[in-house]
Amino acid sequence: MAETFVIAQGGGPTAVINQTVVGATMEVRKLFPGARVLGARYGIRGIRNGDFVTLSDLSDQELLAIAATPSAALGSTRDKPNDAYCEAILDGLRHVGADAFINIGGNDTAGTQAILAEASGGAISCIHAPKTIDNDLMENDHTPGFISAAEFVAGAFLSVDLDFRAMPGIYVGIVMGRHAGFLTAAASAWSLDEESGPHLVYVPERPFERSRFIDDVREKTARYGRCIIAMSEGVAGPDGRSLVEHLVPPELLERDQHGNVRLSGTDLGQAVERMLAEDLPGKRARVDTFGYLPRGNIATINQIDAREAFEAGSFAVRAAEQRSGSVALHYTGAETVCRLVPLSDVAGKTRHMPRDFLQANENQVSAVSRDYFARLLPRKFTPARPFV
Amino acid sequence: MAETFVIAQGGGPTAVINQTVVGATMEVRKLFPGARVLGARYGIRGIRNGDFVTLSDLSDQELLAIAATPSAALGSTRDKPNDAYCEAILDGLRHVGADAFINIGGNDTAGTQAILAEASGGAISCIHAPKTIDNDLMENDHTPGFISAAEFVAGAFLSVDLDFRAMPGIYVGIVMGRHAGFLTAAASAWSLDEESGPHLVYVPERPFERSRFIDDVREKTARYGRCIIAMSEGVAGPDGRSLVEHLVPPELLERDQHGNVRLSGTDLGQAVERMLAEDLPGKRARVDTFGYLPRGNIATINQIDAREAFEAGSFAVRAAEQRSGSVALHYTGAETVCRLVPLSDVAGKTRHMPRDFLQANENQVSAVSRDYFARLLPRKFTPARPFV
Repeated sequence: MAETFVIAQGGGPTAVINQTVVGATMEVRKLFPGARVLGARYGIRGIRNGDFVTLSDLSDQELLAIAATPSAALGSTRDKPNDAYCEAILDGLRHVGADAFINIGGNDTAGTQAILAEASGGAISCIHAPKTIDNDLMENDHTPGFISAAEFVAGAFLSVDLDFRAMPGIYVGIVMGRHAGFLTAAASAWSLDEESGPHLVYVPERPFERSRFIDDVREKTARYGRCIIAMSEGVAGPDGRSLVEHLVPPELLERDQHGNVRLSGTDLGQAVERMLAEDLPGKRARVDTFGYLPRGNIATINQIDAREAFEAGSFAVRAAEQRSGSVALHYTGAETVCRLVPLSDVAGKTRHMPRDFLQANENQVSAVSRDYFARLLPRKFTPARPFV
Repeated sequence: MAETFVIAQGGGPTAVINQTVVGATMEVRKLFPGARVLGARYGIRGIRNGDFVTLSDLSDQELLAIAATPSAALGSTRDKPNDAYCEAILDGLRHVGADAFINIGGNDTAGTQAILAEASGGAISCIHAPKTIDNDLMENDHTPGFISAAEFVAGAFLSVDLDFRAMPGIYVGIVMGRHAGFLTAAASAWSLDEESGPHLVYVPERPFERSRFIDDVREKTARYGRCIIAMSEGVAGPDGRSLVEHLVPPELLERDQHGNVRLSGTDLGQAVERMLAEDLPGKRARVDTFGYLPRGNIATINQIDAREAFEAGSFAVRAAEQRSGSVALHYTGAETVCRLVPLSDVAGKTRHMPRDFLQANENQVSAVSRDYFARLLPRKFTPARPFV
């Protein structure tokens, strides 16, 4: 019987990542009374440094308050462990007598678990629990954290569309999403009808071309009197490199330890603003960078998302009894259930938005995409039709 | 007895401006059964062009659905009428037999009403009903639209502070506010304690100095491990000119008909990002432009704000029986009530954030400011304290 569980959080926080921590902790309490649950502060760094919080000492009430709090209560990290770092993590896990290690994060975190699982030789169950607002994990229908962030984006675009009906112009909202356009496409989730924004959607999966972009904006503006645009921070040119890499001088490009270029800056917004000013002079055009606002917003925590994140945590504890692996949210056609898949199926891989989520000939979501979002994110607001 | 009311909306939309339209329409229905209420499309432009919607033809149910919808359902305008334009508006009002004209907007709109009231020689009651997320109207304790926008900002900063606890760094959120810092200061409304963000607040009322800014960011980062900053788009240098005017080449500066420089762009965010990269190299720093997200966000419509906006509309109808004037929200010390004040007390004037809303020696809100926000915007979310 397992006596000590270690839990850590990796990568960018979400609105519901703490639900997974608490789901796991309460499942341990239920299945293994007396077992210890240690939370590592700042992710794997806390394991290496012996920096833990004893979650199993907290009351149910304290735990539930943490579950309802957005962002990563234990702290997080983007450290990419090399061999020596992995050895230090394993030492840290052994030092506290860990039987299982649940690491909550995206595909980089799954990669870390794959390395640790192999290095521990099966002595410690290494479980990856899914978390990412990007919704880009293989084997998952969707990921905990995504629905809440998508709810923010859907509500924001519904609102901005109403704003720009009243005062016509061009609006660009730049949304997080490095390699996958799901969160950007969620801008359409609560769109009222074909005439409503977003009228154009640009995602990393489809090459961005300036002249086509300007033509499309001109055409939509002529047709609807306004043009609302959702654009991923990760949009890339025809050469596959992100626009940000094209735009920012190499000496100013910032990279994390995974080699990822920092996209969450003001560069793309500024460049798009300049493009519109140059190519469509005299048009009112506004660009906002949503940045960090959707990902852990306390005002848009979605309760289905919260429940699924909690269940991913409790499932991780049950799975840890058997073997290492990655918890994935599987849609059966009727409901979403957790299942355990091999870490190698998730680690370091990216689930892109399916090609048919966009219309073939237009930068606009398709019926397939609308059905997906209608299932995940039923409409919460139905504004009246304005007179303009 | 009044037989025809005309209603228009001016300036930037808010989350509750339609409440004022509907409050007025339903009050007319109650007090003057059979009277007509015409809504001008796109503000005064609709009056000039004879472009109206007959609001009094709608059912109560239809009206209440519009009231609950953010942004300006009738459309809005930033047109600044010259003498000929004012004459055309008066002609338009006379053409439909208007007894009263209720124009909902900020201090520019109040100015329009003052001109029309004088030019009509008292034949048409010209009422200004208050609306602005900037909260910058004289004679008002606060303005309809502000509380909802402030709720968005307060929730966003509460959330971002939790995010940056988990992954430490510097965060700047740029918030609308040309001349008044109220909306930016609202970032502190739901701050958990002294240690929580925003740690620094920059508003138009206090000169911004780069070296002082960098010193402050360095000091807060050292003390708290992170630094969360709320900054108004209208922050100005010691010479009183906005930073945006300093930063943007004159040929790229965009002005509206009131001579206002466009501040709602990406320039300030980009400049602040560069400042931080140059002066605090190697520090993780992120800048988001909130832009249009707070002002009509359907997810953060505050019900007190909605009710007050509705009442401002119904009060405007009752006031119109007597004389022209501006509806103002007055706080008695116990409750908020509407009263009618002279248009000249509001027109073209700006209510700045009182000096004592900021601490004397620090770019941080004061107890006075905290009390004000606690009254307007009681805490809606109480997250648990994270472990980091």
